Amino acid sequence: MAPFLSKRDLQFQLYEVLDTAALPSRPRFAEHSREVYDDVLNLAYNVAEKYFANHTRDADLNEPHVVNGKVELVPGVKAAVDAFRDAGFFSAHHDEELGGLQLPWVVMQAVQAHFQAANVGSSGYPFLTIGNANLQREFASPEQQKTYMQPLLEGRWFGTMALSEPHAGSGLADITTSATPREDGRYNISGSKMWISGGEHELSENIVHLVLARIKGAPAGVRGISLFIVPRYRVNEDGSVGDSNNVVLAGLNHKMGYRGTTNTLLNFGEGGETIGELLGEPGRGLAYMFRMMNEARIGVGMGAVMLGYAGYLASLEYARQRLQGRHASNKNADSPAVPIIEHADVKRLLLRQKAFVEGGLALGLYASSLVDDLQTGPDGAKADTELLLDLLTPIVKSWPSKYSQEALSDAIQVMGGAGYTRDYPVEMYYRDNRLNPIHEGTEGIQGNDLLGRKLTQAGGRGLAVLLEKMQADLKASEGLQGVDDIRSALQTAIRQSGAAIQTILGKAAELGPDLFLANANSALEMLGHTVIGWMWLRQAATAARALGAGKDTDFYQGKLQAARFFAVYELPKVRAHAELLASADRTTFDMQDAWF
Amino acid sequence: MAPFLSKRDLQFQLYEVLDTAALPSRPRFAEHSREVYDDVLNLAYNVAEKYFANHTRDADLNEPHVVNGKVELVPGVKAAVDAFRDAGFFSAHHDEELGGLQLPWVVMQAVQAHFQAANVGSSGYPFLTIGNANLQREFASPEQQKTYMQPLLEGRWFGTMALSEPHAGSGLADITTSATPREDGRYNISGSKMWISGGEHELSENIVHLVLARIKGAPAGVRGISLFIVPRYRVNEDGSVGDSNNVVLAGLNHKMGYRGTTNTLLNFGEGGETIGELLGEPGRGLAYMFRMMNEARIGVGMGAVMLGYAGYLASLEYARQRLQGRHASNKNADSPAVPIIEHADVKRLLLRQKAFVEGGLALGLYASSLVDDLQTGPDGAKADTELLLDLLTPIVKSWPSKYSQEALSDAIQVMGGAGYTRDYPVEMYYRDNRLNPIHEGTEGIQGNDLLGRKLTQAGGRGLAVLLEKMQADLKASEGLQGVDDIRSALQTAIRQSGAAIQTILGKAAELGPDLFLANANSALEMLGHTVIGWMWLRQAATAARALGAGKDTDFYQGKLQAARFFAVYELPKVRAHAELLASADRTTFDMQDAWF
Repeated sequence: MAPFLSKRDLQFQLYEVLDTAALPSRPRFAEHSREVYDDVLNLAYNVAEKYFANHTRDADLNEPHVVNGKVELVPGVKAAVDAFRDAGFFSAHHDEELGGLQLPWVVMQAVQAHFQAANVGSSGYPFLTIGNANLQREFASPEQQKTYMQPLLEGRWFGTMALSEPHAGSGLADITTSATPREDGRYNISGSKMWISGGEHELSENIVHLVLARIKGAPAGVRGISLFIVPRYRVNEDGSVGDSNNVVLAGLNHKMGYRGTTNTLLNFGEGGETIGELLGEPGRGLAYMFRMMNEARIGVGMGAVMLGYAGYLASLEYARQRLQGRHASNKNADSPAVPIIEHADVKRLLLRQKAFVEGGLALGLYASSLVDDLQTGPDGAKADTELLLDLLTPIVKSWPSKYSQEALSDAIQVMGGAGYTRDYPVEMYYRDNRLNPIHEGTEGIQGNDLLGRKLTQAGGRGLAVLLEKMQADLKASEGLQGVDDIRSALQTAIRQSGAAIQTILGKAAELGPDLFLANANSALEMLGHTVIGWMWLRQAATAARALGAGKDTDFYQGKLQAARFFAVYELPKVRAHAELLASADRTTFDMQDAWF
Repeated sequence: MAPFLSKRDLQFQLYEVLDTAALPSRPRFAEHSREVYDDVLNLAYNVAEKYFANHTRDADLNEPHVVNGKVELVPGVKAAVDAFRDAGFFSAHHDEELGGLQLPWVVMQAVQAHFQAANVGSSGYPFLTIGNANLQREFASPEQQKTYMQPLLEGRWFGTMALSEPHAGSGLADITTSATPREDGRYNISGSKMWISGGEHELSENIVHLVLARIKGAPAGVRGISLFIVPRYRVNEDGSVGDSNNVVLAGLNHKMGYRGTTNTLLNFGEGGETIGELLGEPGRGLAYMFRMMNEARIGVGMGAVMLGYAGYLASLEYARQRLQGRHASNKNADSPAVPIIEHADVKRLLLRQKAFVEGGLALGLYASSLVDDLQTGPDGAKADTELLLDLLTPIVKSWPSKYSQEALSDAIQVMGGAGYTRDYPVEMYYRDNRLNPIHEGTEGIQGNDLLGRKLTQAGGRGLAVLLEKMQADLKASEGLQGVDDIRSALQTAIRQSGAAIQTILGKAAELGPDLFLANANSALEMLGHTVIGWMWLRQAATAARALGAGKDTDFYQGKLQAARFFAVYELPKVRAHAELLASADRTTFDMQDAWF
């Protein structure tokens, strides 16, 4: 079977494109070294291979179901999350005093990438738990952290994020779950939450739900929403698990893919009181959630990248082994069939996958390194770094979600009928990844976020920082051999994107918010491709420099060729999006319901 | 539940864009009238709704499996094919003397569209049977037609096409199934056939396989391949069904979608003799198959269109009912949420689906009308019509296969998490349609066919005919209100495509066949979008004229707006493909296996 991840490319991204090996010069990481990071990544590979990759298809074929009121999962899941816990990954990025290794976020993200690639479904449980703990670490009280976060770091309890409701998915402002103050300072929670991943299972001693709800009397809209810690089982004074908290499983959702992660409809306060604790201040619930959103959205983007990457590797192996047809120039029917990787159109499909998944990986890790810079980098740069990360986040989330799906479609296409069957994993990855453009903010939400918020905030400083970074890399790559195509295509894309953004922002007031945002998707596509083009310039420049040393030349030639592919086949698509955006086209805006 | 098909649009395409109502002026259709066609289409709708749409999900959830050596299907399938037979659709396009209605092919295709939309899996059995009978009608001997075709027309026996083998899918030249002459003039068939849809089941009294095989001693390659009629059960002198012919089911393929159509691996000549009859002349097997390919490929394209169309209608209904969020300009959190169809990005996703599926439907029916013109149109135009149909066929097959998949992804996106679950049909359609870019010639095959064969045959006359037809429609639409966008975008696309084709053909000799074909996919994309742009011009012009009459204005406004959408959002993509093609870019050609 094909490997689920390229160790070589991960090393390239972390240590050659990014300067991860230099992070130990920062005080928080002083105990680290490249060897420490490599050991952690090797451990991740081994745990992912042994305990996660072994039941990916089993979990797909046997989706979670309810038996005697309990959610039943395939047996491999429990062994997997236990192995993840035993390896210490639940807390690996946390402070030493909390039991962690103080791993940088970029390394933590690279660790997680292994599990996403090996088994996206089973990795959902620990990742939701990690995200939950991260939020508590930032905003919960010390007592709450001791009671509800520490067991998550130890992997004894798991966590969820309970935001959506049956009538409120993208429109969180309309949630109606209520929180009624109790005399003991806590709240009775009542309402229904939809699409809750990991909402019910028997994998952990308890489940800590982070629940958005409205305190009785709170105003309508976003400012009336608060965040609550709501455990599945109440917690005794000594921290042990107590009675049921009356969070009732009302149903499981039956998904096309991503089936290993159980997804639930939960009723709170059904058949008894559901007691929750307010987390932070009233009315700040969505704000807390959004503060954690950058990391969550990087996580979704990285998950998409890794599914696409696993599909690419599977189709690559197949293309090298499958014999079929001959070159068009060979008319000798008696000559042997060639491996299909020799056909130009198969190479196109493979190069396209390579360009998409390695471009996406570069972006996901780059964004993760910005999270580290925000936390441990030089103070003077943090304001700019935050704006850049804010600007990139909708792209980091949505670009790989969309283009890994394209890559996975190409993986199926390379394999033909075989790729369409469950004899190979690519059809499963294709089903799994189709969730990624939907959850954690749909593609439409990301487009509006990019154009309506991120491109304008701080007077457009985020975009200015991005342009400076790209120009610096363009300048640094001048004269390198083999990077001309990507340099000139990127320059063109930057010029087109920049002009279009300037034009549409200039018209914003005159257009009004609805028409201004009507083509937000084009902004996302245009800037997304431009940013990935930049990621390819960075990889190509690194490869061009390394080629001089004469080592590993096939690998670096591949990087240059994939960069060229992105330059020639993909970046020219920026132009049409830029023109559409700049024209403030009214076609969708003017469309009427009755005309459909 | 949403309807699976738009009767109104089908009427528009058949009677307003095409002049199907005029066909009865041709001698073969003299007994017909528009009323006859409408009755047939209504019958198709009713049978499709009652007997096909009722078990689509059931067949998806319960894929075919083997019980005691027999393939077991969900019960709805048998009732469906019986109803299809009782309605007379197996023979409806055949001569009256054969029990048919002599329906034009465009009407027959419209009939089939209902079943593809309602249940693509169950419709596979009759459609394979119809294709098999069509081939026999063209090339089999009168005795063979009596024995093997007549029962297909009556729907008593079913048919398959058995081309691929485990080692030979796209590369049919390498098939090894053998045919050894017997003393009785027939042949003993021996070998394995892979991906045989409808290869084994209990739906019909017998199954007639059309099998590609090599007569012992035949040359290697395509010219050594002959076609054989191989029944599942041998046929007695009196035409009754006799003993087993030793066609052994070796396995079922487990597909991501399209699960209602059982797909098999068959062994011929296992455990006893498998006897077949030569169909037509030796060495002409692939030629016969390809003569039928135009119709088969139109059928695949139409199947893709109808899946996309059904998904569009489902997501449209959802978007009208689902309340979520407010317009960006509305900051009042107390105001009610709006139906999501009011959001510009949702309108974009719906318009995009509309543009793709209605554009595809227009093309599929136009191509079907060319099949009629070839058979019953004026003799003087037939040579040109055949070249045009040949040129369009790879586009008719591959464009909807690809762009219905995009449309179905958009349908899921409109519906968000709901669209990702099996509470709605769109995730199933998405899985079903992913087969269409693979079977009946992959997208890669279609690209090579278009650029390597269809654009050059007869000195490029096919392209000249296409350009003449497009120019005629451009001229006829001059001055019509509301069609400016599509007219000018189409003119640009035609200019860009035409120039790129001229350039690449001019370089062909110098490039050699391998490099010449390296970017064939761009030719397919470029000309595909241009042709669909033309289909939208035809629809827009029809709508613009009809709007003058003041009836049904919403419907016609929708047509104009979808044409505008295709002009503004899609046709500008032609340029990048045209530039790439004209540049004879070497990126994929130069890529080396070791660099991946």
